[in-house]
Amino acid sequence: MTHNNLKSNGDVSLNEQALAKHSEWRGKYEIMLRAPLDNEHDLSLAYTPGVAEPCKEIRDNPEKSFEYTRRWNTVAVITDGTAVLGLGDIGPLAAMPVMEGKAALFKKFGDVDAIPLCLATKDIDEIVNTIVLLEGSFGGINLEDISAPRCFEIERKLKERLSIPVFHDDQQGTAIVTLAAVKNAVKLTGKTPAETKIVINGAGAAGTAIVHLLRAEGFNDIIVCNSKGVIYRGKEGLNHATAELAEITNDRLIKGTLADAMLGSDMFIGVSVPNCVTADMIRSMNAKPVIFAMSNPVPEIMPDIAKEAGAFIVGTGRSDFPNQINNVLAFPGIFRGALDARAPEITIEMALAAAEAIANCVSDVSPGCIIPKALDKQVAEAVAKAVYNCK
Amino acid sequence: MTHNNLKSNGDVSLNEQALAKHSEWRGKYEIMLRAPLDNEHDLSLAYTPGVAEPCKEIRDNPEKSFEYTRRWNTVAVITDGTAVLGLGDIGPLAAMPVMEGKAALFKKFGDVDAIPLCLATKDIDEIVNTIVLLEGSFGGINLEDISAPRCFEIERKLKERLSIPVFHDDQQGTAIVTLAAVKNAVKLTGKTPAETKIVINGAGAAGTAIVHLLRAEGFNDIIVCNSKGVIYRGKEGLNHATAELAEITNDRLIKGTLADAMLGSDMFIGVSVPNCVTADMIRSMNAKPVIFAMSNPVPEIMPDIAKEAGAFIVGTGRSDFPNQINNVLAFPGIFRGALDARAPEITIEMALAAAEAIANCVSDVSPGCIIPKALDKQVAEAVAKAVYNCK
Repeated sequence: MTHNNLKSNGDVSLNEQALAKHSEWRGKYEIMLRAPLDNEHDLSLAYTPGVAEPCKEIRDNPEKSFEYTRRWNTVAVITDGTAVLGLGDIGPLAAMPVMEGKAALFKKFGDVDAIPLCLATKDIDEIVNTIVLLEGSFGGINLEDISAPRCFEIERKLKERLSIPVFHDDQQGTAIVTLAAVKNAVKLTGKTPAETKIVINGAGAAGTAIVHLLRAEGFNDIIVCNSKGVIYRGKEGLNHATAELAEITNDRLIKGTLADAMLGSDMFIGVSVPNCVTADMIRSMNAKPVIFAMSNPVPEIMPDIAKEAGAFIVGTGRSDFPNQINNVLAFPGIFRGALDARAPEITIEMALAAAEAIANCVSDVSPGCIIPKALDKQVAEAVAKAVYNCK
Repeated sequence: MTHNNLKSNGDVSLNEQALAKHSEWRGKYEIMLRAPLDNEHDLSLAYTPGVAEPCKEIRDNPEKSFEYTRRWNTVAVITDGTAVLGLGDIGPLAAMPVMEGKAALFKKFGDVDAIPLCLATKDIDEIVNTIVLLEGSFGGINLEDISAPRCFEIERKLKERLSIPVFHDDQQGTAIVTLAAVKNAVKLTGKTPAETKIVINGAGAAGTAIVHLLRAEGFNDIIVCNSKGVIYRGKEGLNHATAELAEITNDRLIKGTLADAMLGSDMFIGVSVPNCVTADMIRSMNAKPVIFAMSNPVPEIMPDIAKEAGAFIVGTGRSDFPNQINNVLAFPGIFRGALDARAPEITIEMALAAAEAIANCVSDVSPGCIIPKALDKQVAEAVAKAVYNCK
């Protein structure tokens, strides 16, 4: 919605070009054969009668589905279309271009075969049951663009019922790349995790997952805000999810607005809305303030304004500014590693190892270079290795 | 089960080779990119921010999902693993090698992108609901290896609820290729459809669909048998499906065994079990008896025995004998045509047109050549055209 209104003429032309390209591609993925079918002998091996052999092997030992079928390398990219980009609840059909893009990125960077599936229901149990029924066709499940707080319950129920990895990219993926950026940022600020006061704006899927992962890495001074201001224990009007957040954050019991939270803080992490951070808020922060303004495509504060107000490091979700914090740094390698390890789940250890691997891909950390480039192909490999080694 | 026991040493080696190949392939399909992702400009078109444009177009006009995503060319190949090959109910995991083979054939012969999905439920409504939820991701649904009579109800319910084509290959696919063979056979016997007495052994998915399609083409003298003998109106112990069959077949009210049915008949169509037809049964048929013994891999009677007993034409499901009646002649072209036409369903007219197109692909019909070769690539094209022209 903000998309067209706030972009320049150059972006209007990009948008037109993107639409024309989608019309030309008519889909961003297709199927390719791995078995030849050029003659009757080929057919007798890949299809009848020879195909009965792997069928019988799997019937007798279900684990062999990872040996004789594509399952070992296949991930379902699943959405209900309720929280797509900044567009919100646009439905399953309209979500497909994003899911196809994701599938293409999975293949390009992780050599993972991802199948985009958009479900025509918003019912939590219906989504969970559908995915449970499909489990045997896949080696992993990547949830995508499902609105909070529904996504938390869907993920929790799936993890209980599935024995293949479940990953919600908007949660864990975002948290992992954010932690990678945070880790390299504190190398430059010289502040320890314990003394780094962090403010997160946005208490949805991403914000919540970032809290959990930061805490696992020792960042314990975190204040979370949402559109109603600072979240604190005992605040009225909290839902189940934000009340849980209140329990594990804001030990100093700060109240008030985002501005109140940012006063005297060291780092701002925005997974929220455009232009909600002012220069004055940054001026009110401690020395060497770090700003990750990841609202897309328009950040919480534009990098030039943030820099002018004294920001030491600025990162955004955009490719046209330094320090792009992009999930593509995480998910292809995460699943590559998890699939190769035949891991039954993506653990917090894997997430931490992935963040560390991403951070370490930057050989010469500086304020203008705290995270690898989104298209750096070595990253997925490093992440895959780190995740694999957690098994 | 009959598979290993009844095959020769040569086939044991084929089986071993098939297993080794499946282990080498580790899946018979994979994902291929249709959009480049080589630099940031590519990423901005295929993914964020450009991808928001096709999303918004589809949100405002759902029909455009066929323009901006792969949906227009994508078919789900769906099974519950209850009737796989001759192996029976081996479950969803063990069914996957067949579904992957099907997907490979779809691509090879129809350039259709087929996604194999194996569902971990045998509950009719659960299967139907799952497919309904997935509809928006696909341009068509190919049901596969679902046991009768459940498959009839699943298909009927899906046709009521979906606005994309639903095709059960074990029913319609088998019926279409069988009708093609029958049409060319009667060109040689010189008998009209009305005067051709047909016996079908097997009252499951395939047998039932064959009855319906033959009747639509004017073959009205049909007797169906199953393991309990001839099916006739009022017979005790018929289930819902076989009672329905009894209503539309066997007007002469023949009773008894398969041998009783075949006495004085013109054509035998077997979709049943190995070796259930004897030479004596064939000798009891009318002049120029036609035998389609399609049980796989071991037919209802071996072609040499049938020929010796006087069979005029013999067809089987096997590639190592003349007249192989193979579904691959139908399904890739059927879906190619239906997808190109954006047909909401596969109609009986399309099925008849497809059978006619397959039959017409044989330029010089003779007893040893009444149906095109399974790997004849011109067939899918001819079928697609015929189906497309029905729109």
